[in-house]
Amino acid sequence: MHPDFQLWTTERLALIESFLEQNLPATNCAPARLHEAMRYAVLNGGKRVRPLLSFAAGELSGADKTQVIAASAAVELIHAYSLVHDDLPCMDNDILRRGKPTCHIRYGEPTALLVGDSLQSLAFQLLAESALTEDPRTQLEMIRHLAFAAGSRGMAGGQAIDLDSVGKTLSLPELEFMHIHKTGALIRAAVILGARCGSRLNEDQFKQLDHFAKCIGLAFQVVDDILDAEASTAALGKTAGKDAENNKPTYVSILGIKQARELAHELQREASGVLDKFGPEALRLQQITDFIVQREF
Amino acid sequence: MHPDFQLWTTERLALIESFLEQNLPATNCAPARLHEAMRYAVLNGGKRVRPLLSFAAGELSGADKTQVIAASAAVELIHAYSLVHDDLPCMDNDILRRGKPTCHIRYGEPTALLVGDSLQSLAFQLLAESALTEDPRTQLEMIRHLAFAAGSRGMAGGQAIDLDSVGKTLSLPELEFMHIHKTGALIRAAVILGARCGSRLNEDQFKQLDHFAKCIGLAFQVVDDILDAEASTAALGKTAGKDAENNKPTYVSILGIKQARELAHELQREASGVLDKFGPEALRLQQITDFIVQREF
Repeated sequence: MHPDFQLWTTERLALIESFLEQNLPATNCAPARLHEAMRYAVLNGGKRVRPLLSFAAGELSGADKTQVIAASAAVELIHAYSLVHDDLPCMDNDILRRGKPTCHIRYGEPTALLVGDSLQSLAFQLLAESALTEDPRTQLEMIRHLAFAAGSRGMAGGQAIDLDSVGKTLSLPELEFMHIHKTGALIRAAVILGARCGSRLNEDQFKQLDHFAKCIGLAFQVVDDILDAEASTAALGKTAGKDAENNKPTYVSILGIKQARELAHELQREASGVLDKFGPEALRLQQITDFIVQREF
Repeated sequence: MHPDFQLWTTERLALIESFLEQNLPATNCAPARLHEAMRYAVLNGGKRVRPLLSFAAGELSGADKTQVIAASAAVELIHAYSLVHDDLPCMDNDILRRGKPTCHIRYGEPTALLVGDSLQSLAFQLLAESALTEDPRTQLEMIRHLAFAAGSRGMAGGQAIDLDSVGKTLSLPELEFMHIHKTGALIRAAVILGARCGSRLNEDQFKQLDHFAKCIGLAFQVVDDILDAEASTAALGKTAGKDAENNKPTYVSILGIKQARELAHELQREASGVLDKFGPEALRLQQITDFIVQREF
């Protein structure tokens, strides 16, 4: 990682961690155990890829980093809730997340269910009560966007398609359709919400930016599948090899490792091509794109 | 029920059912099974007490009924999601709701989990995309209010307190604290969001209205506990006697039937006392209050 990008990232990670720390309910506030479990699920050393995307997109659209914090936190809370619910026994039944016991292993299933539910509510509360933009109508549009991206025609819908696909043979377009919803919708929301915090972009540029986000969302998933197939549980911090074990179709199972790698690089090139049109302000988005494709965990 | 109140109710129930029907994703839209299950969980003949409260509060504040529909639907979607999650095996493990199999019995646990998650997202989407008020800042405040009421310091928090209370002896204030969160927060949100759709009330009147809503929220729960103790499963449309079976503290278990009835009427009187200050525009709120206390299912 370039030292200058490292510094940029470290600064923003500090902002987002501090904001989440302050805006998650305190453990001395009732119900204490639920609040402890919410903090456990969120303040656990996540990579914060989505918040970083929001910050980078905010930079592209001329927003100050302080303006982007709440929106980026809201997206991260939706992501965190989805992980808690996805790990539940009735879903992926996973016991390890970021190297620690999953929320329901640590706090029990009923609490984990309520943690996810409460984190989703908190995301929308923060989006509604924070000063995100000068125009409250833009703020309403951001809430609408995140709600749509999280819901049945976005992330949760992708999860439903994923559940239905276990044990089935999917075509590449079917797999892509699933991931555009399951992980793609929220990554696109991270980029678009970050950019809406500023005022430098026109609607055509928002469309291009959305296409960029669609490409890196898919690239992210392709790389995830490669890592799941190749890495060890210790390196991933979550149970490796689960996809194959669960007989889940992945980019690796459909394309093989070599072609999956090629696809990741192709998506990286397409994403970079969009960014080239935006000029030097897109530097951070470019660096995150490279990070997403080259990461090893 | 007074014929005029009956007519008022029938008209508004038609509005809310039609709005929900149109705004729940269609079953021919992917993922079809998730959307079918969402519709099953919502369009199931619920009493729609919360939407009716929103309409009645909207009337008090001078809002036209068409302005209140989206807000009332959002509150009902939060209520519907909470029922789906509360019925899950890891929570109340209930198999019957409104006389039909619960969502997870009909569609399986994973889908029921995603139904609840998706209904919550849809609630905020509708609040953000609909024209609720002339002032978008008021609309943001409504979203903030509902998100807070649904989350860990509201409804979901009340559910957590409820889980912790199983098998414990609660004092009356502890039981009240639980219900002010578990059912009260959303009933208050229904009233306040309905009233925010109009512009006739000042902030002091909002405070009084909130106190009214707190009273009827508790009254609602006291009556629920009485009905659970006395009614048959057939009349309730959900499994009766579950509270005693689960060793859950209720108003009946703490006070006995007679004193629980007295408490319900005391709360009704206090609620009515607040409404008296508002004059004839509070008629519908008054009628709903009487309905809540006198209902038999």
